[in-house]
Amino acid sequence: MKNFTTLKDISNLSELIKEAILLKMNPFEYSEIGKHKTLVMLFFNSSLRTRLSTEKAAKNLGMDVMILNVNDAWNLEFEDGTIMNFDKSEHIKEAAQVISQYADVIAVRAFPTLTDKAKDEGEVILNSFKKYATVPIVNMESATAHPLQALADAITISELTEKKTPKVVLSWAPHPKALPQAVANSFVKMMQDLDVDFTITHPKGYELNSKITKNSPINYNQEDALKDADFVYVKNWSSYNDYGKVLNQDNNWMMTKAKLGNAKFMHCLPVRRNIVVEDAVLDSDQSVVIKQANNRTFAAQVVLKQILEDL
Amino acid sequence: MKNFTTLKDISNLSELIKEAILLKMNPFEYSEIGKHKTLVMLFFNSSLRTRLSTEKAAKNLGMDVMILNVNDAWNLEFEDGTIMNFDKSEHIKEAAQVISQYADVIAVRAFPTLTDKAKDEGEVILNSFKKYATVPIVNMESATAHPLQALADAITISELTEKKTPKVVLSWAPHPKALPQAVANSFVKMMQDLDVDFTITHPKGYELNSKITKNSPINYNQEDALKDADFVYVKNWSSYNDYGKVLNQDNNWMMTKAKLGNAKFMHCLPVRRNIVVEDAVLDSDQSVVIKQANNRTFAAQVVLKQILEDL
Amino acid sequence: MKNFTTLKDISNLSELIKEAILLKMNPFEYSEIGKHKTLVMLFFNSSLRTRLSTEKAAKNLGMDVMILNVNDAWNLEFEDGTIMNFDKSEHIKEAAQVISQYADVIAVRAFPTLTDKAKDEGEVILNSFKKYATVPIVNMESATAHPLQALADAITISELTEKKTPKVVLSWAPHPKALPQAVANSFVKMMQDLDVDFTITHPKGYELNSKITKNSPINYNQEDALKDADFVYVKNWSSYNDYGKVLNQDNNWMMTKAKLGNAKFMHCLPVRRNIVVEDAVLDSDQSVVIKQANNRTFAAQVVLKQILEDL
Repeated sequence: MKNFTTLKDISNLSELIKEAILLKMNPFEYSEIGKHKTLVMLFFNSSLRTRLSTEKAAKNLGMDVMILNVNDAWNLEFEDGTIMNFDKSEHIKEAAQVISQYADVIAVRAFPTLTDKAKDEGEVILNSFKKYATVPIVNMESATAHPLQALADAITISELTEKKTPKVVLSWAPHPKALPQAVANSFVKMMQDLDVDFTITHPKGYELNSKITKNSPINYNQEDALKDADFVYVKNWSSYNDYGKVLNQDNNWMMTKAKLGNAKFMHCLPVRRNIVVEDAVLDSDQSVVIKQANNRTFAAQVVLKQILEDL
Repeated sequence: MKNFTTLKDISNLSELIKEAILLKMNPFEYSEIGKHKTLVMLFFNSSLRTRLSTEKAAKNLGMDVMILNVNDAWNLEFEDGTIMNFDKSEHIKEAAQVISQYADVIAVRAFPTLTDKAKDEGEVILNSFKKYATVPIVNMESATAHPLQALADAITISELTEKKTPKVVLSWAPHPKALPQAVANSFVKMMQDLDVDFTITHPKGYELNSKITKNSPINYNQEDALKDADFVYVKNWSSYNDYGKVLNQDNNWMMTKAKLGNAKFMHCLPVRRNIVVEDAVLDSDQSVVIKQANNRTFAAQVVLKQILEDL
Repeated sequence: MKNFTTLKDISNLSELIKEAILLKMNPFEYSEIGKHKTLVMLFFNSSLRTRLSTEKAAKNLGMDVMILNVNDAWNLEFEDGTIMNFDKSEHIKEAAQVISQYADVIAVRAFPTLTDKAKDEGEVILNSFKKYATVPIVNMESATAHPLQALADAITISELTEKKTPKVVLSWAPHPKALPQAVANSFVKMMQDLDVDFTITHPKGYELNSKITKNSPINYNQEDALKDADFVYVKNWSSYNDYGKVLNQDNNWMMTKAKLGNAKFMHCLPVRRNIVVEDAVLDSDQSVVIKQANNRTFAAQVVLKQILEDL
């Protein structure tokens, strides 16, 4: 693997999932593969799971890890040709080339603005690193995508499904803040690549980018969409069309035990209890969110392993 | 050892102290015991000594260390049943279970509010980790206790005492800010378990929790209390009864060379010079604060070693 | 090597440069030399290159690295005899002695105030660590010096020069903010020790400390100074005489392709494009700033190696 910035970087999904599950059974089997190799993790935004699981994954492979909260340095300029006389001290051209000399792999977390759709869709930060860095780039959640999360989700469904073709529903949930579409986007794409019967349900106005949802059915009736589901992935996102806006906080869209039926409950976390989903769901055996989070380590580990093998 | 959240987790104090002193003589003797084991250190509050000494202790044992300033993630919710529509993004139930999957041991620093006595006494943060985490928890100073410090203090007294039963005095000192009672509480409990002649001295109104001080004598006359002391442990704390208040900044309570007599001077650090204690004390050979701080490494190391042995 | 706080700590510059170049060819040759040795990196200020390259250098030598942003602890007091009743929680006397017990080497970054010339020239922070620490101190840029940068610069010139005695020009550049003189100071001193034909050019009023520039010629005419240069080192600094002031933002002093001639362009980074230097220079083959940044690793590594050998 040369980079892992989008799900398109996966050449064989089912093999990758199998390999991740093998790593989970024996996390230290390849603890020499990363010897004298350094992962630099760059955070433009907050992180808990992604930070700890990616660091852990790298160390399981014997890598050294260096972490930089970009706030501990200074603001970077991403536009070409600017006269840098304001608040940006360094251009990404220099930063990416320089960090590449200290790293064998660079992982980047950079959330969207949610105010500048063109900039977000252009994935300016992630793509600038990809353009100027001279080492592989791993996406730790970018403006429009969270492929490591989606890979962990696919591993989780593969491990837990009792059917060849389970029914999977992505169900929007209310949230007080405007959140990115990244997790939902990557989950949709991943479901399109997996052998599942997939449906999306959300209030009108919350349509994701239609280039992503393509042929995936959208059902505005949550109850109907959830019928006979095997896995229900609940997630809030802000409006894509009315970009970055919170149009609806209707708590009828909250996931409840009653609505869930016999399905397994999935969420990427962090999750706001009794806003996105009621306690009764999270505290039941039907919730697999903790297992999902555990698979973040092995999603990152299989990606880093494949990148290290191709260095 | 299953956890180290309070001094009650110590089963045999004198053995533990002996083992710590042996580790100090040969810090890398067990450098394989922590191989492929990860310590996650979570900081809700500032740290210098605790952070560096605990990280060092873990690495001396060959552990991997991952550090998260919780501020680099987001606010956690600790109450049950709340509707999380304000400033908390994740519930401790999820956070603790998730982090447990990336860690073999979790160490937590979480200071008191000093405004909500019930919450502080309930040790909400520490106990929530203990309740929901599935790996051992180490207390790096909680609302009411600092057992790693007390263990380092006990090691220091054991190493330096020239008598079988030295006289030890805990002497309150003034301070411009409201500080926790945690260090004092744990020191008092530790002295009750050690073979020492122990006295507490402080101005009226600064009584610690009587369930902790129990039978330990309190003398409001500092001069009298200090008489013939072998070790004087100086520390400020805010009022327990008038909870979290600074009632007194009387610099007559500052420790001086004259008051100290021939005793050794102890303090957990950081210490404000010429407020808590005069320069002449800290700069003299009677001060053992640097040795105390060194023993923080071996207190943490012996605790982590015993936890690793019981995993 | 006992410390690396100034360039005076280098006993044999040409040997040091040769050894750094050998390390660059085989970075892991001495990966056992730092086993069970800990570098503590203390940041009073922002960092990107210095932080990552020094951490990398230490790990290349097999050292453990612990990083503390001093802001994650508390303010330190550096004056003697003060009554610490304001915003400083710990005195450097304690802090430096304590950290020395957790570290085999301490690296410190502490920028100048640019308002208090006496304090800055006294190198209060760096020298306090040197005075009170009991382990070697490495300067990661202090109030008046950046010797690791200057060493990387010397390595770069040594690697790239095609002449025995190349002409090197230090050329001041405009900048919107008041920057330290540290990089310029150390570069000047380094050039005085290297076999180069060295000239300094800057607007009147930007004279560096004359004790440092000594016999190095200063030419106020940039065009004249740059003539036939082999290496042009561009850098902004604030006024030394009118201390810390920005006297001039004349963009005629910006480095351009036309002015550069056939010289190689050097800068320590971060650099503001089209303020300090135009894009056409940085994006050309004449720019060696990325190579310079790479040499930061090997400058730090050779210094740490020599320190470890003398422990």
